[in-house]
Amino acid sequence: MGTSLAQVLKQIQPLDEAAMEAARKRQNNLTKPHGSLGRLEELSIKIAGISGKPMPKLQHKAIITMAADHGVVAEGTSLYPQEVTPQMVYNFLNGGAAINVLGRHVGARVVVVDMGVAAGLPEHPGMVCKMVGLGTQNMAKRPAMPREEAEVSLQMGIDVLEEELAKGLDIVGTGDMGIGNTTASSAICAVITGEPVEKVTGRGTGLDDKGLEHKVAVIRRALEVNKPNPKDAIDVLAKVGGYEIGGIAGVILGAASHRIPVVIDGFISGAGALIAAGLCPQVKDYMIAAHTSVEVGHRAILKHLGLTSYLDLNMRLGEGTGAALGICLADAACKILSEMATFKDAGVTEAE
Amino acid sequence: MGTSLAQVLKQIQPLDEAAMEAARKRQNNLTKPHGSLGRLEELSIKIAGISGKPMPKLQHKAIITMAADHGVVAEGTSLYPQEVTPQMVYNFLNGGAAINVLGRHVGARVVVVDMGVAAGLPEHPGMVCKMVGLGTQNMAKRPAMPREEAEVSLQMGIDVLEEELAKGLDIVGTGDMGIGNTTASSAICAVITGEPVEKVTGRGTGLDDKGLEHKVAVIRRALEVNKPNPKDAIDVLAKVGGYEIGGIAGVILGAASHRIPVVIDGFISGAGALIAAGLCPQVKDYMIAAHTSVEVGHRAILKHLGLTSYLDLNMRLGEGTGAALGICLADAACKILSEMATFKDAGVTEAE
Repeated sequence: MGTSLAQVLKQIQPLDEAAMEAARKRQNNLTKPHGSLGRLEELSIKIAGISGKPMPKLQHKAIITMAADHGVVAEGTSLYPQEVTPQMVYNFLNGGAAINVLGRHVGARVVVVDMGVAAGLPEHPGMVCKMVGLGTQNMAKRPAMPREEAEVSLQMGIDVLEEELAKGLDIVGTGDMGIGNTTASSAICAVITGEPVEKVTGRGTGLDDKGLEHKVAVIRRALEVNKPNPKDAIDVLAKVGGYEIGGIAGVILGAASHRIPVVIDGFISGAGALIAAGLCPQVKDYMIAAHTSVEVGHRAILKHLGLTSYLDLNMRLGEGTGAALGICLADAACKILSEMATFKDAGVTEAE
Repeated sequence: MGTSLAQVLKQIQPLDEAAMEAARKRQNNLTKPHGSLGRLEELSIKIAGISGKPMPKLQHKAIITMAADHGVVAEGTSLYPQEVTPQMVYNFLNGGAAINVLGRHVGARVVVVDMGVAAGLPEHPGMVCKMVGLGTQNMAKRPAMPREEAEVSLQMGIDVLEEELAKGLDIVGTGDMGIGNTTASSAICAVITGEPVEKVTGRGTGLDDKGLEHKVAVIRRALEVNKPNPKDAIDVLAKVGGYEIGGIAGVILGAASHRIPVVIDGFISGAGALIAAGLCPQVKDYMIAAHTSVEVGHRAILKHLGLTSYLDLNMRLGEGTGAALGICLADAACKILSEMATFKDAGVTEAE
């Protein structure tokens, strides 16, 4: 087992102001008008502050894609059957999913983690097994999981992060797979942001109006039955969350504790980020919001976390696909900071 | 000399509907919910239509960065002196500019073209010389260039594109360098879009309020003195344009005539795109708008061209930096289309 959750929470420190100031100064000396690369400049400065390095280099990149199942699918809230979760895990392992393509595109390894797929997956050399249980319970009737399992899922996320760190890791992205997990994420989002359920519940993989109405009703019932305490993130995770969402929260906390920038994917990863920030508000500074998802609740999550995303491409796939594109931008930003010539280097006249 | 402008304009055809339909069908069979990769899916379908290939692969990528000087700087519309144009060209040739960093990042070669730098650049093995003249005239007093030079600059752009095509080219991005070129671009934008000068004139490399007011006055004077005809794009280019803007328009037209997708950078490239579309409205279908620039006129250009950009990162550098990031997204989109497994390949159950 890696560092304990309690220890990780203690280790999360403010950003390194000196590294940020050095990065800011260098950006202003590079051969371009001040600020002309906009958010890429800001992103490089943020990563300097996260990593504590004035010129961070993002050599080792990983996307951690966590899979698990959700008992709430018994209520018929998803268009796809539960068998798709393990099928997609095999697709990840065979390199045929969108996250594999985009991981290769941006030079990030894809780490596939079984956090609790209901079918029970056999060992596979390409898969990390951190199974907490064979899928969660139906949150519309009872807590999705006992509190102990919520704690284990967070710990599993920390452990995965630390195992990847040992292999070399300069930036990490989060990702998810789990039929039914937009239902759990909307529930978490409603509880923690305080928004009404219908404002943070979307069509998932493609529900029609009637399906969406039903999904809202199921989430409302789950909140009534369980009464999660918004001030207690572990309670929220246990009652209306999921194993992969807990795992993602653990990855985020672990990354921050080791000063690794963590690129948050879309809605499900955002729900994990809400749990992480509920446990340690400081962790928000270590998050990079890759994109804004089509899932309607995602905007509420970003607002709650105080993050502005970098991309808005009408995506809603998950898996870490948005995070992959975000990692690519982060890499570009850091290369700008470290590889560009200064006015002095290049003998270019500065503005009057 | 490559294909003549007249011939290029004749060669530009509508998009290939059959290739688009095949790409659309394949996107819907890939292992993800329909439409869940949003604008990346649409982009891959557009590139299929442009290239005429149902599964386009973007192996060979180039960014063509065109440099030239502007006589209007005599009016004091820029914060940087004209000597910065050749200094930045040398920075490009030495690999130290932002476009070099981002070109390497996305795997695109950077083609540096002298379209008319006032200092007169000596030959350099890394530079393509297509010099039309030693900088344009001061458009606040007379036409920026004679009509013949505007035609030559368009032809030079076509020639550069065709020279790059011979080396292997699957996608091209446009870029610019030229102290004073936001002044010319705002003038072109005002004439062609019909927007008032003050609504399409921005701070360029960083003018203050007084500087901006002066710039607007200079552009108004240029339009009064020259009376460019908005229906005659070559007249607009000659009277208030620039050599690199003509070159960019030529690159765009040349690319479209050879069914090569062309990623338009920011404001100056957008002005080139307005000239290209003025000569052949069909060319708009071949354009991919990389990003939305901070330069205020850029939104009017995108609207006029009917394009929606992919990135909004508060950038305003030019050089092709936005185009580089756009090429990276286009590459991701095409890899998704060609490399992902289908539901059948992967044995994944489809939605009900």
